[in-house]
Amino acid sequence: MRAISSKTTIPILTGIKLELSTEGLILTGSNSDISIKSTVIKDTELQIQSEGNIVLPARFFSEIVKKLPESIFTFEVKENLQTVIKSGSSEFLINGLDADNYPRLPQVSKNLQFELNGKMLRNLINQTNFAVSTQESRPILTGVHFVISNNQVKAVATDSHRLSQRILQIENGPDNILDFIIPGKSLTELSRILSDVDDNIQIQMSENQILFTIGNLSFYSRLLEGTYPETDRLLPDSSTTDITFNSSKIFSALERASLLTHESRNNVVRLVINPELHQVVLYGNSPEVGNVEEILNVDTLVGESLEISFNPDYLKSALRAFKTDQITMKFTQPLRPFTVVPKENDGQFVQLITPVRTF
Amino acid sequence: MRAISSKTTIPILTGIKLELSTEGLILTGSNSDISIKSTVIKDTELQIQSEGNIVLPARFFSEIVKKLPESIFTFEVKENLQTVIKSGSSEFLINGLDADNYPRLPQVSKNLQFELNGKMLRNLINQTNFAVSTQESRPILTGVHFVISNNQVKAVATDSHRLSQRILQIENGPDNILDFIIPGKSLTELSRILSDVDDNIQIQMSENQILFTIGNLSFYSRLLEGTYPETDRLLPDSSTTDITFNSSKIFSALERASLLTHESRNNVVRLVINPELHQVVLYGNSPEVGNVEEILNVDTLVGESLEISFNPDYLKSALRAFKTDQITMKFTQPLRPFTVVPKENDGQFVQLITPVRTF
Repeated sequence: MRAISSKTTIPILTGIKLELSTEGLILTGSNSDISIKSTVIKDTELQIQSEGNIVLPARFFSEIVKKLPESIFTFEVKENLQTVIKSGSSEFLINGLDADNYPRLPQVSKNLQFELNGKMLRNLINQTNFAVSTQESRPILTGVHFVISNNQVKAVATDSHRLSQRILQIENGPDNILDFIIPGKSLTELSRILSDVDDNIQIQMSENQILFTIGNLSFYSRLLEGTYPETDRLLPDSSTTDITFNSSKIFSALERASLLTHESRNNVVRLVINPELHQVVLYGNSPEVGNVEEILNVDTLVGESLEISFNPDYLKSALRAFKTDQITMKFTQPLRPFTVVPKENDGQFVQLITPVRTF
Repeated sequence: MRAISSKTTIPILTGIKLELSTEGLILTGSNSDISIKSTVIKDTELQIQSEGNIVLPARFFSEIVKKLPESIFTFEVKENLQTVIKSGSSEFLINGLDADNYPRLPQVSKNLQFELNGKMLRNLINQTNFAVSTQESRPILTGVHFVISNNQVKAVATDSHRLSQRILQIENGPDNILDFIIPGKSLTELSRILSDVDDNIQIQMSENQILFTIGNLSFYSRLLEGTYPETDRLLPDSSTTDITFNSSKIFSALERASLLTHESRNNVVRLVINPELHQVVLYGNSPEVGNVEEILNVDTLVGESLEISFNPDYLKSALRAFKTDQITMKFTQPLRPFTVVPKENDGQFVQLITPVRTF
């Protein structure tokens, strides 16, 4: 169901394909971008009388199965693709579609194959995917850029206003350097499927498709074609003002400030940093409603004084992704991007936020 | 907040009125139809420096108070109605409005006054309010009709397709016969406020207003003007076919059937009752998706055979309102309304559903 969209230009894709062989039942859903294949192996709970294929309206089939009166049901395709589902004293007759007309799944060769831990991949997705662009004007930015080399995975996402980069070490990585871009929407669904998976998952790749194999489930996604912008040079390698905060306190202050800034046209907070007074003040303003001033508790504050304005929502999502008690913000100039990193930064997780010019 | 709407033609009503006197703080919200007044009595947790009134933007004021960093805050109205809210290191300055421009609450005299138990009133509302009309074409049907006489409350709601009537005995009812119609939307909010109230609540009434007093809270609603249609004559006093069902089983069967009927233009299930075979079958159909046949388990079935079609959603909401294990459906003719009552019916709770002509 996670791959099936009710809005599609290919009517048969609103259906779920069922393929019954002597080995078991294969269910397939697809929206062209993502395809998911799930296999139910034959056992005492799946008894097979005869083989065959059918496509059934996905939403109904799933709702019907959920709502059947008994835990067991019988399933029989009759003439004219009509399918009878019987359970207890309930009997459904559902109009099916010819499985021969269902699009074929992409072919992904086994030449390029490696493993990743499910939990690690899920974290990697959740720590970057929120920063992809939702605008189709630059399609390449709607995906997360993965580079795998030297037993290391680097994932980067940016919508050109903010960027999130996460690097993780892996074991038994592929020999070649891999460089690919997975659409953000595919990753959102993959992350949901991975929510309970702590095992390793197999990954295969061809030029424009990637296949994740998770137990009896195969998750196919197309890859975005094109060259991802060079992002390494965007990350500043030095800073002139560094502040370390308690994450949850600055998060709450941003939440209060954005109550007002969300009402104003440009949704911007202003941070005034005064190292001499050891003081950092956050200002939010809505011409109609009013304004707010938050004196922030800083753990450490070194460097030059600075005034900088930025979208509070970007910092809020950055903090949500870190999940650490303390974060460090590193600034250079009022109009240059600043970075946010976990306090104990090993260079493996960094977020970049572009300030907003307010004058 | 329950009375305040963000969409209003009277801008000051998007605000919450605060009146601070030496006795305490009164908060008022209103959308013209409903007004709610809540009093916070002066005590150690409410310290008053000076009296005064202000209207603040309700949504912001409520969100700000929720998100303040400390449990205590100070509140000060300065020049030009600007209001300072301080808590910990957070300081808000909110633009207020002049409380003198806030509409006055309706006057409700104490001449007509009685008490009802909070839990009883909440049940009465939940058992009838779902059946009010949502169409403004007959405004009188958008309310619940209450008649209080002889220590008895009768509540009736109908949208002309189905009707719900609940009668409850009360103690110390008013001496006069009372007959009034409360808008369904007011009752929805009142029922939410009553969700934790098991005490008696005071009710006062004038020609076009009703006031419920619940502890420190006053809930005002306008009454609908006009004459409610005569509904007693709609309830049939005899039947020719009676069936008693297990409520949850027929509810599940209706849920399955409506998966399909919701897809068809007229959303109708068909019930075929055959007393000779002691069999009742429910049919649902969608020309596109397919059909379903449910053989219903009946506890008792007496009378004549019958085929009848109706909207399954009406029977589902009726069953939800009853909350009893067994219900009895009483039919006369295929095109005459049928009633649904709890099996142990003492005449105090009855629902009426109008069938649909399908030929």
